[in-house]
Amino acid sequence: MGILRLSHVEVRCPDLELSVAYYTEVVGLIETARESDRVWLKGWDEQQHHSMILRYAPTYGLETLGFKVAEMSDLDEYQERIEQAGISTKRLAAGELGKGSGETLRFTAPSGHVVDLVHGMRQVGNMLPLHNPPPEPLGLTGIHPPRIDHVFLMCEDVDGATTFFTDVLDFRLTEQIVSDDGYQLVTFLERTHTPHDLAFVTGPNAAFHHVAYWVDDWNELRRAADLCAFHGVRIDAGPTRHGATRGWGLYFFDPAGNRNEMYTGGYWADPDREPVTWTEAEMGRAIFYYEGVVDQRFLTEHS
Amino acid sequence: MGILRLSHVEVRCPDLELSVAYYTEVVGLIETARESDRVWLKGWDEQQHHSMILRYAPTYGLETLGFKVAEMSDLDEYQERIEQAGISTKRLAAGELGKGSGETLRFTAPSGHVVDLVHGMRQVGNMLPLHNPPPEPLGLTGIHPPRIDHVFLMCEDVDGATTFFTDVLDFRLTEQIVSDDGYQLVTFLERTHTPHDLAFVTGPNAAFHHVAYWVDDWNELRRAADLCAFHGVRIDAGPTRHGATRGWGLYFFDPAGNRNEMYTGGYWADPDREPVTWTEAEMGRAIFYYEGVVDQRFLTEHS
Amino acid sequence: MGILRLSHVEVRCPDLELSVAYYTEVVGLIETARESDRVWLKGWDEQQHHSMILRYAPTYGLETLGFKVAEMSDLDEYQERIEQAGISTKRLAAGELGKGSGETLRFTAPSGHVVDLVHGMRQVGNMLPLHNPPPEPLGLTGIHPPRIDHVFLMCEDVDGATTFFTDVLDFRLTEQIVSDDGYQLVTFLERTHTPHDLAFVTGPNAAFHHVAYWVDDWNELRRAADLCAFHGVRIDAGPTRHGATRGWGLYFFDPAGNRNEMYTGGYWADPDREPVTWTEAEMGRAIFYYEGVVDQRFLTEHS
Amino acid sequence: MGILRLSHVEVRCPDLELSVAYYTEVVGLIETARESDRVWLKGWDEQQHHSMILRYAPTYGLETLGFKVAEMSDLDEYQERIEQAGISTKRLAAGELGKGSGETLRFTAPSGHVVDLVHGMRQVGNMLPLHNPPPEPLGLTGIHPPRIDHVFLMCEDVDGATTFFTDVLDFRLTEQIVSDDGYQLVTFLERTHTPHDLAFVTGPNAAFHHVAYWVDDWNELRRAADLCAFHGVRIDAGPTRHGATRGWGLYFFDPAGNRNEMYTGGYWADPDREPVTWTEAEMGRAIFYYEGVVDQRFLTEHS
Repeated sequence: MGILRLSHVEVRCPDLELSVAYYTEVVGLIETARESDRVWLKGWDEQQHHSMILRYAPTYGLETLGFKVAEMSDLDEYQERIEQAGISTKRLAAGELGKGSGETLRFTAPSGHVVDLVHGMRQVGNMLPLHNPPPEPLGLTGIHPPRIDHVFLMCEDVDGATTFFTDVLDFRLTEQIVSDDGYQLVTFLERTHTPHDLAFVTGPNAAFHHVAYWVDDWNELRRAADLCAFHGVRIDAGPTRHGATRGWGLYFFDPAGNRNEMYTGGYWADPDREPVTWTEAEMGRAIFYYEGVVDQRFLTEHS
Repeated sequence: MGILRLSHVEVRCPDLELSVAYYTEVVGLIETARESDRVWLKGWDEQQHHSMILRYAPTYGLETLGFKVAEMSDLDEYQERIEQAGISTKRLAAGELGKGSGETLRFTAPSGHVVDLVHGMRQVGNMLPLHNPPPEPLGLTGIHPPRIDHVFLMCEDVDGATTFFTDVLDFRLTEQIVSDDGYQLVTFLERTHTPHDLAFVTGPNAAFHHVAYWVDDWNELRRAADLCAFHGVRIDAGPTRHGATRGWGLYFFDPAGNRNEMYTGGYWADPDREPVTWTEAEMGRAIFYYEGVVDQRFLTEHS
Repeated sequence: MGILRLSHVEVRCPDLELSVAYYTEVVGLIETARESDRVWLKGWDEQQHHSMILRYAPTYGLETLGFKVAEMSDLDEYQERIEQAGISTKRLAAGELGKGSGETLRFTAPSGHVVDLVHGMRQVGNMLPLHNPPPEPLGLTGIHPPRIDHVFLMCEDVDGATTFFTDVLDFRLTEQIVSDDGYQLVTFLERTHTPHDLAFVTGPNAAFHHVAYWVDDWNELRRAADLCAFHGVRIDAGPTRHGATRGWGLYFFDPAGNRNEMYTGGYWADPDREPVTWTEAEMGRAIFYYEGVVDQRFLTEHS
Repeated sequence: MGILRLSHVEVRCPDLELSVAYYTEVVGLIETARESDRVWLKGWDEQQHHSMILRYAPTYGLETLGFKVAEMSDLDEYQERIEQAGISTKRLAAGELGKGSGETLRFTAPSGHVVDLVHGMRQVGNMLPLHNPPPEPLGLTGIHPPRIDHVFLMCEDVDGATTFFTDVLDFRLTEQIVSDDGYQLVTFLERTHTPHDLAFVTGPNAAFHHVAYWVDDWNELRRAADLCAFHGVRIDAGPTRHGATRGWGLYFFDPAGNRNEMYTGGYWADPDREPVTWTEAEMGRAIFYYEGVVDQRFLTEHS
């Protein structure tokens, strides 16, 4: 099966305590481990050790992102393919990146992002018993999304980054926004048969646009917006619909300035589904279907 | 990737016109082809030719069910495995089962059901353009679920059927209801990382419990119930929640007596997720989480 | 304006602590006062001291129900009208029925129920500041409906009870279920331009069918059902829709056996709106629109 | 009971056919009558002849707004009070303003708006039978709100307009936004025990900010936004929440440039409820609770 899905992101923050308070109390993630300069968090329904690592750093931004692979042998196969593409890789044993971490293949993608492929991250369960479980544990706080959904990255050459992820890592293109002169402005890539696990948008290399967690429906987006407003979290856009992916989202910023999204909706994407193309003139609808235009701030503010 | 997902069901009905009217006007499926004794239908967002075939027959019930495979070579591999398991198979060329049908591997599972594995069913698109599409076509009628979700079958030996589908066809067990003396009463099996694409419940061999289409949220279940009541469709149960799968569902009957479900919710199931087990004493909660008991009619009325 | 709306109910319970725990933790009402044999509760958004009084008693049932009037002079006018109708009344000063109570006119309606008309109940605010309030206080628990909605009572002579409430107390009939021989089986009466503040159903005099609190939408009914199931509260019916009132409801029982409803939806009823009539044959749809039939238990189980 | 609620608005449009197409097909109102220069419309669940009149005019804006009174005698009483306040009035017989119109008391409020108080508008029913009705007629199109909700007007002296409507016409103040130097910037006034039937915001006299129709929940706002985007209707703001009223709304423009809102939510307001006050610094939250700021365009664009 190769790459199963987005596994986790590691995000920088200059005030670790403040960011932990935000991610646990407003977003409602669960803290699973802590060291002096890193805190590990997960969505309540995730079985694995973490989907977000907060790392102390002088500024904000994305340190690494990780994808989960199905088999240990996938790491070997992808290592060979990535090196054949002229990119150097590194293997890290389980636990080397922290107590819960799995066996890891690390490399820097052509987009400038440090990417980990991971197998065997420690399983910690989803807070529910394996016998006769209720649908949700009692006492969750904040927005409490069940799981991570996708990550949006920026790079100068979206065509090139997309080709790397489709050709070398077997991602499939679901949608794209194409400039009038034929370049890909934004691409949506999937491994989970959902509209996107990963997306690229034109911008500086190695830049980070947002990480999205899944919420269950449009009503949960409203609840998320209520909680953000209540806690004084700066809402960037939404609740709104995306033309691309057909999903609904709410964007807001963590205390360090990293953009978060709560996302829901979308469709089922079989591997033989033909990609959807948006023209540059319809980029507004593609991103913000209700507003029909994209605030330049949305495209230029990143970390 | 092997089996991708549930592809379609073929359902018997003694009054073809009445069933077509029901499935197109109340359920809101789209008719894609018609012959004198068969009508092909699909959910509006499905790209492929059909997810339901209505077949004229003197009574109701399930004629066949089909799963979609990713590659033509999957048919060969599964054919070998199935025959090694002592079950005879048959290959049918694309078009042989109707104009839209794909290359098919047909066999009878140990549960008594005729199963097709299909590759290359004709693609007909989802009623939306491939450039700058709106999120939904205008003018859909009835409940109009976007796609098929899962099928619930009955058989005498649930343990045996489950073993066949997991060992030979690579399904994964997500949940099970186990009797006090250790037999599987109900099993939930998936290929899509959702809670179930296929489930077995104890009953007569070859019997059919229900086919479920996906709707987008709890609110759509309410709308489905309003439409069923408006049109005099007999609602069997719900809107309610299932303990097993955590999903929400509404059950009702087509004019021939075949049970339909509209289903939504559930979780993401990685392949390494441990299955959930429900005890016989909690079978009520497992199936109808709100009511806490299962009406015997629900278990004994089938086709 | 006369009678403004349903003000409160006083409900009997043999285990006061257990009932308080249920109404505060599962239903999520707010406790505002307590004496040895009575506890006062309100919905979080109610401005007044209480909408429910739990009274220790050897059994369950309804002790009294109260309606709020707009002006003190309304008490005098209704007192005169009620006595003219041959019913004796009693005046109780503010505080006489407990510290938060208002000036009260008490009488026994022809249906056998003790009814209070109240003016000037103590105002305690809705947990939100009067300057720049958020939409909801943080930290509410359980279902936490904002306010009381309606009460459903039983009596032998529904026609007679309805006439008393419309002629003497200025209620307006919005809907009725009429037997084949022309008697009112169920009547829905309002003062708030909503479908009902009060309803009567045929049964024993002085009997209590249910008290309903308002929740904001269909999604909140689902959340209420999840919480009931989680806490082992016995769900009686729903989430479902009513044909009469068009609203949606969920019925369940408090630990003493008093039926509760969470209700939402409905329409706006101007005073000149013509009442809707349901025939006896359609009584099932009138009460449970999805199921189409009324479980006899629903009609015969009361307190 | 005096004034019951907002009855209707009469709105100007330079292209009557275009506006009728928009209000019937996108908004989904029902056309009930037509003359060469006027078209009458209503929400599907409204019993009376119209809640909106489209009037041909060279530009856009509000021609009149009407409130429904309970009794014919209310017209006489208000006429006396209004004239005592130094404002001249005019009586128009039923039918004089069009075939469906009721007996009307017309005057110009201190805010510069022409206001009608109406009794006895023709009743046309709500498209449902009076016996055993379904909850909604089949075949409604567009957003199809059931009824009108409130109107937002502009004037130079909000304090003065508010005093007139509270003192002379018995409206009650539910919320206000007050400037740092103590003037009312926005006031919310009700007759229906909802957060507002009428509101004033500082601006030019006689100007019209928006008319709002009610939709049933947050999910219907999403559906409304989908329909607006699909039909190329310009969305102005939302779906979002208001701090004041706690409601949710979506703003967009009719083809003539008149602002519409679809609104839902809010609370129950007893007459003895104390008004909520928002400070000028929190005006952003009061109007757009999620965004926290008010786009100047929202305040300055009007008709």
